[in-house]
Amino acid sequence: MDFKFLQELIVPAKTKIVLLIMDGLGGLPLEPGGKTELETACTPNLDALAAKSALGLTQPAGPGITVGSGPGHLAIFGYDPIEYEIGRGALEALGVDFELGPADVAARGNFCSVDENSVITDRRASRIPSDLSCELVKLLNTIKLDGVEFFVKPVKEHRFAFVMRAPGLGDALSDTDPLKVGAATLPVRALDCESEKAAQYANQFIEQARCLLRDKHPANMITLRGFAKLPHIPTYPELFGLHAAAVAINGMYRGVARLAGMEVLDVWGDTLADEFSTLEKCWNDFDFFYMHVKKTDTCGEAGDFMGKVRVIEEVDSLMPRLLALNPDVIVVGGDHSSPAVLKSHSWHPVPLLIYGKYVRPDGICEFGEHACSRGSLGVLPATHVIRIALANAGRITKYGA
Amino acid sequence: MDFKFLQELIVPAKTKIVLLIMDGLGGLPLEPGGKTELETACTPNLDALAAKSALGLTQPAGPGITVGSGPGHLAIFGYDPIEYEIGRGALEALGVDFELGPADVAARGNFCSVDENSVITDRRASRIPSDLSCELVKLLNTIKLDGVEFFVKPVKEHRFAFVMRAPGLGDALSDTDPLKVGAATLPVRALDCESEKAAQYANQFIEQARCLLRDKHPANMITLRGFAKLPHIPTYPELFGLHAAAVAINGMYRGVARLAGMEVLDVWGDTLADEFSTLEKCWNDFDFFYMHVKKTDTCGEAGDFMGKVRVIEEVDSLMPRLLALNPDVIVVGGDHSSPAVLKSHSWHPVPLLIYGKYVRPDGICEFGEHACSRGSLGVLPATHVIRIALANAGRITKYGA
Repeated sequence: MDFKFLQELIVPAKTKIVLLIMDGLGGLPLEPGGKTELETACTPNLDALAAKSALGLTQPAGPGITVGSGPGHLAIFGYDPIEYEIGRGALEALGVDFELGPADVAARGNFCSVDENSVITDRRASRIPSDLSCELVKLLNTIKLDGVEFFVKPVKEHRFAFVMRAPGLGDALSDTDPLKVGAATLPVRALDCESEKAAQYANQFIEQARCLLRDKHPANMITLRGFAKLPHIPTYPELFGLHAAAVAINGMYRGVARLAGMEVLDVWGDTLADEFSTLEKCWNDFDFFYMHVKKTDTCGEAGDFMGKVRVIEEVDSLMPRLLALNPDVIVVGGDHSSPAVLKSHSWHPVPLLIYGKYVRPDGICEFGEHACSRGSLGVLPATHVIRIALANAGRITKYGA
Repeated sequence: MDFKFLQELIVPAKTKIVLLIMDGLGGLPLEPGGKTELETACTPNLDALAAKSALGLTQPAGPGITVGSGPGHLAIFGYDPIEYEIGRGALEALGVDFELGPADVAARGNFCSVDENSVITDRRASRIPSDLSCELVKLLNTIKLDGVEFFVKPVKEHRFAFVMRAPGLGDALSDTDPLKVGAATLPVRALDCESEKAAQYANQFIEQARCLLRDKHPANMITLRGFAKLPHIPTYPELFGLHAAAVAINGMYRGVARLAGMEVLDVWGDTLADEFSTLEKCWNDFDFFYMHVKKTDTCGEAGDFMGKVRVIEEVDSLMPRLLALNPDVIVVGGDHSSPAVLKSHSWHPVPLLIYGKYVRPDGICEFGEHACSRGSLGVLPATHVIRIALANAGRITKYGA
């Protein structure tokens, strides 16, 4: 997507856009000829909205490509997820709501078990419970070094997020996890000149961690991998002149939204209804709202077909609260598919609905994979969605005379 | 579109292609669930042709982008309208049938009103009637300067087209219209070195115009904006080996067709029937015909839903004359959408039909937005249309063995 071209056509407007993302929305039938999760769900409100909408199926990163939630979200936000890559370390830090700065280098950390010869005996330290992990993270946070700040945040069980903050750090750094037991952990190596200093800091951190954890078996050592800084991406205010807000509970989604220049709102509570309350409360303060529903994906990944159906039905039951706000444009879609039968993310195109007063409605009275495959938007790159939403919101002026 | 790749595959043939463009063809229903202009129109001939055709919806410049007629036409002619931009001044000159040369610099001109301090009091000179404007344009055409030729052509009311002709002129020139009343007109500034001379010529012209118009209140001054040369674009004969002709009444469309290397035919009369007569008369002399229907757009922009319906019905009633010529390939489409409910151009994809003996027909017996959204061509960039037409006309050979 040529942002410069689009940016020059952006005009201000008083319209409001809501982008409602059900994570991992796309699904598959349990058996050939059956219905998907979305098609099985009883969704009278979404079906009624579909009848007044244009439908299609989105591909986050082209045909056949399965994406993680990071690239999936970048794509539906309008950014080419192949051009703008968010490294795993950075995603992990965002996932624990760490406010990662543009110069920070982040990594995924694991507690692991090593024997007296420093050889790994368990890459996940017997998956130590999260509360024990929290204690050990406190220990790691005592490590100090001149010229650099370290931040360690617990994730879950043996996992933690690791961040180095100092001016001029590069992130071309090798992993320390040998990815097998019976081998020693590896030192961090700089893969370019700019990353030499970062490699030294990381190795010094690791050596101090080794000392601190010496008698903490099974969590007596750490590994670090996926070192990454945040990519610089042009923001929603810069690109589209949108004063954008994110309503999301989970850290990673909040982090990607922040990266796109959205203001991340505090959600008081952890239910879907709480997210809708946040939307209502802040309705007058923004002109773009990204809303994130996590549990469709959680159920999909767990293989819980009916659980995913119920989450979709809950979203549907809350739709009247969204509609009552009378947004000018509503987009309902997903960041990727997560069919329960696959128990994982998948490459299948994702159902999409774009509603607005000036949309050309397809007249298809159902929101589901098969219905969307008959929609006028066809199979489209997810990156196109924001453009169409902006057009329908009167925020793109005519190109040429 | 990679012209070089395509160009190498072009082979001669004795086939004929007709590209029938209804300007602003795409529409919207008056109310949700209703029919668009094209769907409302009674079009037995187009419907019968659709049944033997492949259908789809075109996007002139990607999703969400509304285009002017210039880029809209470039796109349906096969040129990327973002790569090949026609500036506003050049379009204005083409619009009054001025044969703009490759070195000419054109601008849009306005008569305006200024007070005794040269401050603008009316940017449109009370929209003086066109006949008065014609008289004043005659006056401006008396301005002579060594080393450069000036051409001024009336457009409508206070508007005129201005052209400078001299070797080596650049077109990176600033506007003189301050875009508000209460400010003086601005001098033309050169925005690069190559445009210095053009800026001097334009400023000298403006000063002479100021003297000539001194006592012509309300039209006692001029502004110039949108300075532009024509872009160089590869032509239909060069690219496709087509001996192409344009049947269009309005200047701008004639100008864009000329830019693409089409021979612009004289239409004796100003009705649609006259255009079809021209087609018939010249049928043996060319192998590609672009036909332009203006009034679909005029009605759309005027908000005249039923007027647009009637223009489409008139086109339909003339289709038997086109079919009687037995073209090998017929394309019916538009350069952009102009829904009457929006009273403007819009971003909505445009209905398209491609008929030919070797087309794979969709078997959809209707030509309309919803019918086309079910078509096998899907939503496609408008730039792809000419390729498919050429293929169906046996003018593209096999790539590779």
